[in-house]
Amino acid sequence: MVKLNPHRFFDPDTTVRRIAAELYDTVKDMPIISPHGHVDPKLFADNRPFPNPAQLFIIPDHYVFRMLYSQGIPPAILGVPTVDGSATETDPRKIWQVLADHWYLFAGTPSGIWLSHELYEVFQVSCELNSDNAQKIYDELQEKLNSSEYLPRALFDSFNIEVLSTTDAAEDDLQAHQEIRKSGWQGNVVPSFRPDSVTDIARPDWLMSIQKLSLIIGKEITRYSDLVDALKYRRKYFIENGAKATDQGVLSPYAHLLSEDAAETIFQRALNREQTSADEEAFIAHMLMKMAEMSVEDGLVMQIHPGVLRNHNRIIFNKHGLDKGCDIPIQTEYTKNMQEFLNRFGNELNLTVILFTLDETVYSRELAPLAGHYPALKLGPAWWFNDSIEGMTRFRETITETAGFYNTVGFNDDTRAFPSIPARHDVARRVDANFLAGKVARHIISKSDAETIIRALTYDLVKKAYKF
Amino acid sequence: MVKLNPHRFFDPDTTVRRIAAELYDTVKDMPIISPHGHVDPKLFADNRPFPNPAQLFIIPDHYVFRMLYSQGIPPAILGVPTVDGSATETDPRKIWQVLADHWYLFAGTPSGIWLSHELYEVFQVSCELNSDNAQKIYDELQEKLNSSEYLPRALFDSFNIEVLSTTDAAEDDLQAHQEIRKSGWQGNVVPSFRPDSVTDIARPDWLMSIQKLSLIIGKEITRYSDLVDALKYRRKYFIENGAKATDQGVLSPYAHLLSEDAAETIFQRALNREQTSADEEAFIAHMLMKMAEMSVEDGLVMQIHPGVLRNHNRIIFNKHGLDKGCDIPIQTEYTKNMQEFLNRFGNELNLTVILFTLDETVYSRELAPLAGHYPALKLGPAWWFNDSIEGMTRFRETITETAGFYNTVGFNDDTRAFPSIPARHDVARRVDANFLAGKVARHIISKSDAETIIRALTYDLVKKAYKF
Amino acid sequence: MVKLNPHRFFDPDTTVRRIAAELYDTVKDMPIISPHGHVDPKLFADNRPFPNPAQLFIIPDHYVFRMLYSQGIPPAILGVPTVDGSATETDPRKIWQVLADHWYLFAGTPSGIWLSHELYEVFQVSCELNSDNAQKIYDELQEKLNSSEYLPRALFDSFNIEVLSTTDAAEDDLQAHQEIRKSGWQGNVVPSFRPDSVTDIARPDWLMSIQKLSLIIGKEITRYSDLVDALKYRRKYFIENGAKATDQGVLSPYAHLLSEDAAETIFQRALNREQTSADEEAFIAHMLMKMAEMSVEDGLVMQIHPGVLRNHNRIIFNKHGLDKGCDIPIQTEYTKNMQEFLNRFGNELNLTVILFTLDETVYSRELAPLAGHYPALKLGPAWWFNDSIEGMTRFRETITETAGFYNTVGFNDDTRAFPSIPARHDVARRVDANFLAGKVARHIISKSDAETIIRALTYDLVKKAYKF
Repeated sequence: MVKLNPHRFFDPDTTVRRIAAELYDTVKDMPIISPHGHVDPKLFADNRPFPNPAQLFIIPDHYVFRMLYSQGIPPAILGVPTVDGSATETDPRKIWQVLADHWYLFAGTPSGIWLSHELYEVFQVSCELNSDNAQKIYDELQEKLNSSEYLPRALFDSFNIEVLSTTDAAEDDLQAHQEIRKSGWQGNVVPSFRPDSVTDIARPDWLMSIQKLSLIIGKEITRYSDLVDALKYRRKYFIENGAKATDQGVLSPYAHLLSEDAAETIFQRALNREQTSADEEAFIAHMLMKMAEMSVEDGLVMQIHPGVLRNHNRIIFNKHGLDKGCDIPIQTEYTKNMQEFLNRFGNELNLTVILFTLDETVYSRELAPLAGHYPALKLGPAWWFNDSIEGMTRFRETITETAGFYNTVGFNDDTRAFPSIPARHDVARRVDANFLAGKVARHIISKSDAETIIRALTYDLVKKAYKF
Repeated sequence: MVKLNPHRFFDPDTTVRRIAAELYDTVKDMPIISPHGHVDPKLFADNRPFPNPAQLFIIPDHYVFRMLYSQGIPPAILGVPTVDGSATETDPRKIWQVLADHWYLFAGTPSGIWLSHELYEVFQVSCELNSDNAQKIYDELQEKLNSSEYLPRALFDSFNIEVLSTTDAAEDDLQAHQEIRKSGWQGNVVPSFRPDSVTDIARPDWLMSIQKLSLIIGKEITRYSDLVDALKYRRKYFIENGAKATDQGVLSPYAHLLSEDAAETIFQRALNREQTSADEEAFIAHMLMKMAEMSVEDGLVMQIHPGVLRNHNRIIFNKHGLDKGCDIPIQTEYTKNMQEFLNRFGNELNLTVILFTLDETVYSRELAPLAGHYPALKLGPAWWFNDSIEGMTRFRETITETAGFYNTVGFNDDTRAFPSIPARHDVARRVDANFLAGKVARHIISKSDAETIIRALTYDLVKKAYKF
Repeated sequence: MVKLNPHRFFDPDTTVRRIAAELYDTVKDMPIISPHGHVDPKLFADNRPFPNPAQLFIIPDHYVFRMLYSQGIPPAILGVPTVDGSATETDPRKIWQVLADHWYLFAGTPSGIWLSHELYEVFQVSCELNSDNAQKIYDELQEKLNSSEYLPRALFDSFNIEVLSTTDAAEDDLQAHQEIRKSGWQGNVVPSFRPDSVTDIARPDWLMSIQKLSLIIGKEITRYSDLVDALKYRRKYFIENGAKATDQGVLSPYAHLLSEDAAETIFQRALNREQTSADEEAFIAHMLMKMAEMSVEDGLVMQIHPGVLRNHNRIIFNKHGLDKGCDIPIQTEYTKNMQEFLNRFGNELNLTVILFTLDETVYSRELAPLAGHYPALKLGPAWWFNDSIEGMTRFRETITETAGFYNTVGFNDDTRAFPSIPARHDVARRVDANFLAGKVARHIISKSDAETIIRALTYDLVKKAYKF
């Protein structure tokens, strides 16, 4: 068995390392709260075995195949499905071998760290992956995947997950969530409300999503006010099914309330697919305001994920579709873009708005000063490309002095890769422990304060922020 | 008595810590030069006791109450005065208790560090502040405040302040400064010339400030040229009263000279409150050029503080007014915006322009290359939200390799909170000592160079830059 | 003799330092590959002695005299030539003394580090430079410069340079390169193709460069298509002379293909010097696309250096010309600006595009995600102001987790100062060794992986990326 160093990721300085290890020990076995992510709830409704290592670790993980593609390995060779159904590699053993042959590319990356944790801690394979032993390890993994201990629900329990939130479209019927509840299994899996498909009129499939939403509410949506009613209705339904939060992905966090008439006019143009790009920007900005209004009413926590230019590489997008590793961050401005939003909603004492960014330049300049003032505003953890040892460390280093610890909300794994959940939470706990240990060793905070804070970052703050 | 660790804020590595301590020891008792800040000179003119701990530590300190507000505690509960005079908490003991109850929020923040230094070093209270002992500590503080050792002038002397510069409006009569001089007290308190109230035509109270300025110069200001004459006249008066520097706060550092006719036209529109926002931007950009012109003539050092969107939260602003913790930085561009300014004034060998920023992204990209070239340009220290252990460290790390040490100007405390002055300078000295120690330990600079540099950063450079 | 510490620039922590030293030892004597820089090939064609220390270390080095100018020493006092031929200091001993008198300004800067390496390692002077011994050291240096060991070719050999690439204008006749080859000397010096002078229609001397290009191809360039043909023809000539790469310096990396007609129209306006600034931007953006097209055809590696506002200080530019330390970086956007370019060329498996930046904010936000996806895209090392200990460290820290090590291309010295080449490569090797050692000490990568990676960063990746 491969043993990962128990003090991994801690500072080499012996004082800091010792304190980090002590702090980490107090939280390493705490339950996982996963308040935001993209695991498919069907996994737990069906509770079927994962088919094979390639299907589990490679084919659905854009972190993995984007890196392989950057070195010239096309997604089709890795079995990534195509939009038109054209052939891709179907032999999972061959796909697995490609990963093993290029394992060196992942040195120093979060993907490398997570996969190592999965292989050596979760699946406890017998030796370190390399080209030569790739098929032997494949066999070991396949054997485990066939066993009952590695079924999704069994893993959920062994991962010590207290609650897992999925992300679900406004028009989703939440059938998988209902099946989970009906099944009698005690795992706490709840939905989150993501309205982008019906609020983002720029999407090519927006009309189709509106039609789906019409179907599910049993009433045709022909006016802007119908959409608002539908959203309220669906939010209620999500809340009945356990949802605590919403989530919106927007190119810019710009928010601005339109008059009802102006919103209606744009909505009608959108129905005819005649909206301008100014219409699109205005409507999305308007819907951020409306969603906050609804959150003030119904208590759902509001998450905002801005600043990604999706599907930057049209060749990959046209061949393989969404979420294929070609989403690229852009510079994102919050101070001016969110002024109307924060003036209207930032002072609400019983609203929580959790803001994320991929643009690290705003941590110290904009986000920490905003979160260090507005009571409704909290900062989500280092996101996506920044969900890494150095990325999380930079987040704490640039946020803490202005926003403190208590205007942040603990960790989100944000993953599609279910077996990576313990790895991701473990890295976050180690990084936070190490960050705090550095502060203790420099006499900036006391050891006993650090003990309270590490628990808050691991558990208390996330539970409070997301109202679990 | 609570004893702060003598090696606090130094690197945990024993070599770095030892060198840092040695460097710090050579400067820790040097006199404080405070070339820029917002302490009220009336404090020293009147020399009355500070009324109580809440009035001293909480009510005037927007760093403190913004953090408390971010966690839902309204400023009124902390006794922060209202614009309309409506009631706020008046019991200083209750206000003090709120701070003690939320003391944990300040873990790892500069406010926490400064307040600790004030409580444990300046006021030498007997135990660490918490909810239970808040009233006992209040009593201890109150007793000290009533004693002659804690009068403003006594503190000024015991803080070992060699010179303290205040910031005063162009239309200020400098009466407090004159009273100080007349009093025979030897404390060196000098004014700085801040013309924003009369040069920033965008301000709602601009007309009122122009009228005040008219009154104080004894001549009505009806034309642009009157304003320029008034500024020159007032600068002379400030110089006679000891001023060495001016200071301007601008949203953008854009500077561009208008023709005299164009300036006059905008000025007339402003007098009628009919100026456009383009007028406002143009006039402010013009006045930056004019102020530099005047500095070339009269020798006043020019400070520029750009990039803050003031009063972002209109609800707090409308209720409590200016400087209430809701000023938020914005992205700020210097290379293009200041090209005309630097081409005109950057090559002046006997002008000093000290530039600040809240946008850390410009440190390595724009400010260090500019200051590493233009002889008139020097970089002010890490400002406001960045006046913190990590913030100052990032400043040195990203500035030094391109601009060196000698294009910076030492430390500014920039504080309104008089008793925080020794804390702030102590943190700066510790951070600089630690930064230099890291360089010595890595054999990047020699120990003896570091000894010269720590003295320069603490004392020599600030004295030279501000012409004290 | 002055001995530089063998462990300089390594972390003070004993574990990290030990690992860093071990890693560094494995690469410190490897040959230097210098794939991009600005050394004049005539140096090796003529192989004449460097005239004196001032001519070698000060007069041609804008890093050195910009810092001296920032402290008020005009370039003329340092002997920097003037555009109009007006007098400047001619006594090299006086110039050398000015450097020695201001040596303290370079503490903590890369220039200080490189000059120290040159003085103490390359020229092995007998004592540390200061005001008092400046003339003695001058004598020592002059004696060495007169000896055959310090002739350009001898230094090239003793520096263990495997290949050195210069940067040469499209209209250059490459005569010096041909003389080198004809001479029989075995030093491998190759040209790179830089077309800016003929593709950047905004340049004041563009017409003159077009005329030079016409002359050298023996055909008048009167149409846009002539320019394209000329570029192809010259690229072929450069390839025959050993070139492996092109290089373009652009204000923005924006790329967009025009129709041939639109390109022709702009070209005609440019010939009449009637182009608008929109024309200039469009034509440069178009030529980026065309150069990539040509690289797909002929295999030249494409380098892009964006984001510098050249000649910011017109007074210095007018007096002393180009490259005089007054080029200042600006904010640079890559995600949107390069989308068309990367969609068209980023998926080409046999094209290599090497991208540089002076705007560190894009490392983690834009460049690492782009290079971690597009197979044709690789990231050039930390450039210019960021070619420093902290700058290179920040590059690795913010790039590696998303782009890995294998989407970078090793080190470029990018220098005009030939004797600084070993210093610059040595610093890069030390910084990379130290960065890797930190990862090893934190158990993020294994020691044996680090050994492979340090060799890749020093040698393998640069050789592969530049096709040497």
